Amino acid sequence: RKSSMAKAAELAKKAVKLGQDDPRRVTHSLKVGLALSLVSLFYYLQPLYEGFGVNAMWAVMTVVLIFEFHVGATFSRGLNRLLATVLGGAIGLGAHHLASLSGKTGQPIMLSFFVFLQAAGITFMRFFPRIKAKYDYGMIILILTFALVSVSGFREDKIFEFAHKRLSTVVIGSSACLIVSIIVCPVWAGEDLHRLIVLNVEKLANFLEGFGDEYLRKLEDSDLNQDRSLFREYKSILETKSEEESLAIFSSWEPRHGRFGFRHPWKQYLKIGALIRQCAYRIEALDSYLTTKFHAPPQVQTRLEELCAEMGMEAARASKQLSSSLKTMTTPSSATPHLEKARTAAKALKSLLKTTSWNHATDLLAVVHAITVTSLLIDVIDCTDKIAVSVN
Amino acid sequence: RKSSMAKAAELAKKAVKLGQDDPRRVTHSLKVGLALSLVSLFYYLQPLYEGFGVNAMWAVMTVVLIFEFHVGATFSRGLNRLLATVLGGAIGLGAHHLASLSGKTGQPIMLSFFVFLQAAGITFMRFFPRIKAKYDYGMIILILTFALVSVSGFREDKIFEFAHKRLSTVVIGSSACLIVSIIVCPVWAGEDLHRLIVLNVEKLANFLEGFGDEYLRKLEDSDLNQDRSLFREYKSILETKSEEESLAIFSSWEPRHGRFGFRHPWKQYLKIGALIRQCAYRIEALDSYLTTKFHAPPQVQTRLEELCAEMGMEAARASKQLSSSLKTMTTPSSATPHLEKARTAAKALKSLLKTTSWNHATDLLAVVHAITVTSLLIDVIDCTDKIAVSVN
Repeated sequence: RKSSMAKAAELAKKAVKLGQDDPRRVTHSLKVGLALSLVSLFYYLQPLYEGFGVNAMWAVMTVVLIFEFHVGATFSRGLNRLLATVLGGAIGLGAHHLASLSGKTGQPIMLSFFVFLQAAGITFMRFFPRIKAKYDYGMIILILTFALVSVSGFREDKIFEFAHKRLSTVVIGSSACLIVSIIVCPVWAGEDLHRLIVLNVEKLANFLEGFGDEYLRKLEDSDLNQDRSLFREYKSILETKSEEESLAIFSSWEPRHGRFGFRHPWKQYLKIGALIRQCAYRIEALDSYLTTKFHAPPQVQTRLEELCAEMGMEAARASKQLSSSLKTMTTPSSATPHLEKARTAAKALKSLLKTTSWNHATDLLAVVHAITVTSLLIDVIDCTDKIAVSVN
Repeated sequence: RKSSMAKAAELAKKAVKLGQDDPRRVTHSLKVGLALSLVSLFYYLQPLYEGFGVNAMWAVMTVVLIFEFHVGATFSRGLNRLLATVLGGAIGLGAHHLASLSGKTGQPIMLSFFVFLQAAGITFMRFFPRIKAKYDYGMIILILTFALVSVSGFREDKIFEFAHKRLSTVVIGSSACLIVSIIVCPVWAGEDLHRLIVLNVEKLANFLEGFGDEYLRKLEDSDLNQDRSLFREYKSILETKSEEESLAIFSSWEPRHGRFGFRHPWKQYLKIGALIRQCAYRIEALDSYLTTKFHAPPQVQTRLEELCAEMGMEAARASKQLSSSLKTMTTPSSATPHLEKARTAAKALKSLLKTTSWNHATDLLAVVHAITVTSLLIDVIDCTDKIAVSVN
């Protein structure tokens, strides 16, 4: 068992690493603190407090519940909360009015029934994938506001005032969040999506480069493990789909910022992301062939290796061009020649396979390995080509 | 443009389909309505209302915010909320006491500072992946309760009563959710995780079966598109990772139920799930080879096809065995012979490739395709073998 001191030190180290990996995490934490302190002013300043009373706590709650890492996410939650509060409040008032028509005894029964109906209906709506993706939080708030307004109204008699106070405190809380999140070091989901896609193309390039440059030549060396970390970076691409999707949704809520216009084609990023993932699946299959030695009849071994390396290198160069042109958002004209060179290498490799007299080699079987690797590589090049088309 | 009638009909059709796909969605919606109606009783029953007053709305809010589809998720959120409320309340009281020592002017400054510090600190803690996975909701409630208690205390003077009321209403709301979610048609995350893994193995088997049984033989037929839907089911496996992970976390909160004991090895499911995904990556690469025709020198074409088909069939049988033994939770002794047959076929295929005199075939290049397919198949069989080991 470790001592508690050692544990605390370890925890502190982890925390420092988290902060260093992405310093925006630290800023974000400070921003949440700031927004919350701002809103809690409502409790301290006498005149404001007298206006809202206990209801000022809705503002505190709004800040805690809607402040998210990305501006788009905060915006989306804030707008969801606002609209749902208005809508829920209005329906709640309507339900309250309807129920009050049925007299003192009928009213609670009617209200219970309305609450049941509305909660069940909206909970079911949350299962629609589209609503789930964009309006899930709003749906929850809709149920909540409806239940609170229609049910509180039964007791409070000041139902309009309640609805009004709840609305204005939500507006205050949301505005505080939005202002702080946009003014103080904003974290744009759009920028993160852009960066993620560029990074993923770079990871592909890293693998291909590592493959072309190092692997085939140094295969005899046993210290491969050192270079593996670079190869293996591509694995994370396999799992970024949901991250890309939520970032794209947040981005669509964000106003114009930086190099990104108001209607930046965020959906295009999702397409490129999907193609990159396609490519990564191929690489995953290719990768499993790299654990054993590359075999071929001696007379072609060197040439095969060279061609494979060239294909890898050219594909890597093309991907690098793609990622840098994605980064700067220019047309990737310079990727095409590299892809053509890769295709030329692939053709040369095919004709090499054709002209070699395989009957001399009793170890033809061993070449199966090499052939699989090369044809997967050709696949990867095809994928890269598709990505290039999409980027345009 | 469609008429609004047609749109409404389409929406209704979608809603019916959602309900039919998983009838538990309908039950869940009704359950939420029930729990909410139960809790809103607090407003209607005079004596209860007098005990809690406006604070009864915390119970309504608790129900709306913690009631989730799976029992485990509801349990996790409920417990998170409860513990965070207790902890946040206690720290809030402490902060309030500390701040009150510094006099009338110092108090609001101290309190603001505490709120800022606590919000920033806990927001940062939410970035720790482990905390994010299991306690994210609790962290939010911790910030919220602390801010509400410490800040309200400044005004209300009845801070203990406030903390006590908030706690008891949260307990009432949570209990209502838990009782309804366990008693009325419970939806266990553990069962869903189990079913998902079994289904994924079945999808693998479906692909392999479709591959072995149909594809190689009927390749000349052009009506392949019909069978594609079955093949393509495996694609969903590529994206279930996050679902598996969250189900596994929810499962660990669930009490003993059905065939699952208290400490069912949920983590083992994640391992099997990862292996299945490995296998699906290979299949994804294999699938891209099925769009074009299978070429080989005529003298071996038939034999090659037969062997490939056999490999696919045996691997499919083994997967079927695995999925059914997973389903019934017995040891999959009957999968091993199938895997051995698949290996025998692989060996036969290898020796066929060795003994064929390829020099007669000028279209050796075309066989590259066939070889790639077979070696990917061998990979798939290896993966299946690993899954079999894991299931034991």
